[in-house]
Amino acid sequence: MPNPVIAEVTRGGIVESRHTGAFAVVNADGQIVSAAGDIGSAVFPRSAVKAFQCLPVIESGAADHFGLTDEEIALACSSHNGEPEHVRVARAMLAKCGNSEEDYECGAHWPIDSVAEHAAVRASDAPLQVHNNCSGKHAGMLALARQLGAERHDYVKPGHPVQQAIAETMGALCGCDLAQQPVGIDGCSVPTWAIPLRNLALGFARLPSRPAGQRIIAAVRAHPFMVAGTKRFDTDLMETVPRAFVKTGAEGVYCGAIPHAGLGIALKCDDGAGRAAEVAMAHLLASLDVWTPDEREALEAFSRKHLRNWRKLDVGEVRWPAP
Amino acid sequence: MPNPVIAEVTRGGIVESRHTGAFAVVNADGQIVSAAGDIGSAVFPRSAVKAFQCLPVIESGAADHFGLTDEEIALACSSHNGEPEHVRVARAMLAKCGNSEEDYECGAHWPIDSVAEHAAVRASDAPLQVHNNCSGKHAGMLALARQLGAERHDYVKPGHPVQQAIAETMGALCGCDLAQQPVGIDGCSVPTWAIPLRNLALGFARLPSRPAGQRIIAAVRAHPFMVAGTKRFDTDLMETVPRAFVKTGAEGVYCGAIPHAGLGIALKCDDGAGRAAEVAMAHLLASLDVWTPDEREALEAFSRKHLRNWRKLDVGEVRWPAP
Repeated sequence: MPNPVIAEVTRGGIVESRHTGAFAVVNADGQIVSAAGDIGSAVFPRSAVKAFQCLPVIESGAADHFGLTDEEIALACSSHNGEPEHVRVARAMLAKCGNSEEDYECGAHWPIDSVAEHAAVRASDAPLQVHNNCSGKHAGMLALARQLGAERHDYVKPGHPVQQAIAETMGALCGCDLAQQPVGIDGCSVPTWAIPLRNLALGFARLPSRPAGQRIIAAVRAHPFMVAGTKRFDTDLMETVPRAFVKTGAEGVYCGAIPHAGLGIALKCDDGAGRAAEVAMAHLLASLDVWTPDEREALEAFSRKHLRNWRKLDVGEVRWPAP
Repeated sequence: MPNPVIAEVTRGGIVESRHTGAFAVVNADGQIVSAAGDIGSAVFPRSAVKAFQCLPVIESGAADHFGLTDEEIALACSSHNGEPEHVRVARAMLAKCGNSEEDYECGAHWPIDSVAEHAAVRASDAPLQVHNNCSGKHAGMLALARQLGAERHDYVKPGHPVQQAIAETMGALCGCDLAQQPVGIDGCSVPTWAIPLRNLALGFARLPSRPAGQRIIAAVRAHPFMVAGTKRFDTDLMETVPRAFVKTGAEGVYCGAIPHAGLGIALKCDDGAGRAAEVAMAHLLASLDVWTPDEREALEAFSRKHLRNWRKLDVGEVRWPAP
């Protein structure tokens, strides 16, 4: 049975494109609060689990040992725009942990934000690894390598102590033995283990049960700009509704937690479209009976995105499917 | 009944994302040679029908009156990268028809090609309308406006003589009265009329039946770089297999003709993904019994696209679904 439509794109008064997907909302006991589609097959969570990947950075003692700030912890959980503030914080993290940009194994790409990209293009002939949207996460992984007394070289390999610590933590949180799961290579070269949506949602529901999880949520809440940046969905949504904790991942994955309600959420758009995952996540959040009226109204506004063309004419929208 | 999967994206040995869609291959009598999914519902063809939009530029006499070259006709049918060669030809077209960049109503965006984009960013603070991937088509429309003795202002509006001439030509070719069809605003502000895939395929099968259609096909075949550019699927495929005539459109549309076999093709990926439309089009072409062994082998190579991450590691591929 195919997954349901979770977002549609309109133009000229009709539906131009459709996105299917699946989602699970569960509590910390693993009980399903809301779900649709196939939530039992494993999906690669990609960057949506950066909070989980950051847990060992704190639980190992690295964050305290090196004196990481909330801003830095938020950046370690980010897929950032490569804006000057993100680059500044990533460099500060590397420096205070005794690491350098040469230690990075994430690869270089130009900043995601076009203003930052164009500034970097005017300043230089090539992008830097610190511009990589994952450079904060990798700064955290390099800190963890130091704390574990491990070689920094090859810290991105699945068998490296850094990745093994992450796999163990993430598997325990999600109730899923990652050694038995398919593993792929992520855009930034670290392993991404496939986990069913139901288990991913469970992991997010349980995140606040760990002190390190609470610290991460507080850090992101205090610095939502660090997690993404200008005109980015994660940042805008959490700046508007701070009680929501959300994180995008590549290929249409979206995860989150509602700590005050004890809920975790995981969503995947089958075709990998971020535009669909964003509006579906906003709709899904708004549909839960855990918000003030103002919060719900704000979340509903995020569940419709107007599309404008090159002359800024309204041409359609991306939205949760019309009933 | 949902449309079938027409492309899948792999990572770590499993399927990470899936794309559904529909397609039709028909001959000039409208008989279906191959088809899957819903080919009767209207879809916005977007830029996939630029060849049809160019027909009145030739059939009105504008192309001969202003002495448009094959290179310029190819650019009029393009969604180009905004590379220097594309910009040069667009400007030459405008000049020889007595029009200027100020007459454009396509809107400005930075070149699609990143090398061209970065060169433009280093040279200027803002993108130009001539960089717009549709600037060749719009130069053709402005030429048509002059030939028709119409105002150039508002040439993008559905009721303007330029767009009415296009609608009449396209409707006749596709066997579909566009006055009865939904109409949307395209990215470059011109109307896009919704047409069923079956009718779009018919229009492409019939394209060589008009002398202007033959001229367009010959022009594109002689200048495949003009139609798209560096590292673009249309250009690469037609440079490799010149007997195929293909054109991408936004939101996962892909159309084409095989003039030597009298066939037309139209394909739409439901979710709008170009990556899926490309490999599905290549597979669909390769599956037809109209090629030399070398052509088929080349087309099959285009039906699998390797995915590499920021460090150039192989992470998966986009391909026609494994049987």
